[in-house]
Amino acid sequence: MENTTVIRVRYKETDQMGIVYNGNYFTWFEIGRTELLRSMGMTYVELEDRGILIAVIEANCKYIKPAKYDDEIIIKTKLVKLTGVRSEFEYSIFEKDENVLLAKGYTIHAFVDKNIRPINIKKKHKDIWELLGDKI
Amino acid sequence: MENTTVIRVRYKETDQMGIVYNGNYFTWFEIGRTELLRSMGMTYVELEDRGILIAVIEANCKYIKPAKYDDEIIIKTKLVKLTGVRSEFEYSIFEKDENVLLAKGYTIHAFVDKNIRPINIKKKHKDIWELLGDKI
Amino acid sequence: MENTTVIRVRYKETDQMGIVYNGNYFTWFEIGRTELLRSMGMTYVELEDRGILIAVIEANCKYIKPAKYDDEIIIKTKLVKLTGVRSEFEYSIFEKDENVLLAKGYTIHAFVDKNIRPINIKKKHKDIWELLGDKI
Amino acid sequence: MENTTVIRVRYKETDQMGIVYNGNYFTWFEIGRTELLRSMGMTYVELEDRGILIAVIEANCKYIKPAKYDDEIIIKTKLVKLTGVRSEFEYSIFEKDENVLLAKGYTIHAFVDKNIRPINIKKKHKDIWELLGDKI
Repeated sequence: MENTTVIRVRYKETDQMGIVYNGNYFTWFEIGRTELLRSMGMTYVELEDRGILIAVIEANCKYIKPAKYDDEIIIKTKLVKLTGVRSEFEYSIFEKDENVLLAKGYTIHAFVDKNIRPINIKKKHKDIWELLGDKI
Repeated sequence: MENTTVIRVRYKETDQMGIVYNGNYFTWFEIGRTELLRSMGMTYVELEDRGILIAVIEANCKYIKPAKYDDEIIIKTKLVKLTGVRSEFEYSIFEKDENVLLAKGYTIHAFVDKNIRPINIKKKHKDIWELLGDKI
Repeated sequence: MENTTVIRVRYKETDQMGIVYNGNYFTWFEIGRTELLRSMGMTYVELEDRGILIAVIEANCKYIKPAKYDDEIIIKTKLVKLTGVRSEFEYSIFEKDENVLLAKGYTIHAFVDKNIRPINIKKKHKDIWELLGDKI
Repeated sequence: MENTTVIRVRYKETDQMGIVYNGNYFTWFEIGRTELLRSMGMTYVELEDRGILIAVIEANCKYIKPAKYDDEIIIKTKLVKLTGVRSEFEYSIFEKDENVLLAKGYTIHAFVDKNIRPINIKKKHKDIWELLGDKI
């Protein structure tokens, strides 16, 4: 299952190089995760309400071509791995007009509680485990 | 009582105009408040631990000259008004090398609890009321 | 002429108070300006390509109710004043689901060139002056 | 050669999880690069003035323990690889009080000109090539 979401580059996201600042792609990855979960039938708000947080333990991005102000950006997001304690997402970032690949990345996450302590969703939240596992 | 804090402009804080993005000055104001409180003998961390949050209800900035990447910036912060339910801070932003005024601003705040409901520190937290009131 | 644009609050835009950080509303104002210009028949990209930048000289926001993660946010933007050297925009921010007013603000701008020197669009860029003046 | 720089976590850098947002570590890496270059006897401002930009082509961060608001953070930065067209930096992020490792990361960069086209500093900017190569 892959989610596709479109955003537009904000002026705030550019830097004096005239392109989008590297760290901002990780915000786009977060938008991708949010929308992928929503399309799976569960919002991240609901997860947090149930005490499940998805802390990032590794983030990676390869920058291929620069994104520019006012570009429309396609964020494609996939859940590629899932265990009771971890999840891994992959992302591709495209410029919409020319359909050009701008960046690729991944993030690895631990399920944690509100005190940032690890939890096992397979044991503690079977319904979420099944919902996510089903869509991988 | 006035606090003076020095920071250096980050590349992230610039935009494609080649100057610091307007919204980032409010982050500098927040740094000013944090350091003013610390110099008054109380950290904002301690305030939050006691359940007192300082929510912004108005923010204003006048931009006089642009701040640039790698500039050293002086943030001057004063607490100018205090009631049991509100506080008001004023800020001046200078470029350090030439001692040029770049911006001036103010923020008005309500004291709130963790559910963002108003609280009266004069009634509920007399010690903090006195500590702050003393320094105005 | 008023532009209405809808965005969704990003996790990145929240802070540890559990609400959107005050400085981020100015990014939303910028999105409102971008979309208002586009709806007027001119993009900000085109303006910059012609050497016209819209530097902020004052920004103000009044915060009424906090915006939260994943809220859909309506940004309403109006151009309320225009001279050859300045423009002024007003903004209202609403939470979409409940149609609640969250914040109101304004920004005042100077037209400048790429070296951040003032320009007069009435004199130098008559077509833009007429296009904007027509829509006020 | 390793540079050590200390910053303090800003409220703006936290999210509603109560910890620093993952994307913000890349801003800290950028601060590390800026200060490492300065300690090598060359500022990034000077490099840009000479038409040399250091575009990011890959960025990676492993998050070990969360950084919190108002923590003092040590950024340690090393230049670990250098060719005429590329450079690679490694970073370690520590919480200063307890001297705890919070995160580790790296960034890989291409030297580019103002139009984001690759340049070879070994061929075009021998003095910079020698200055950097000497410190690796």
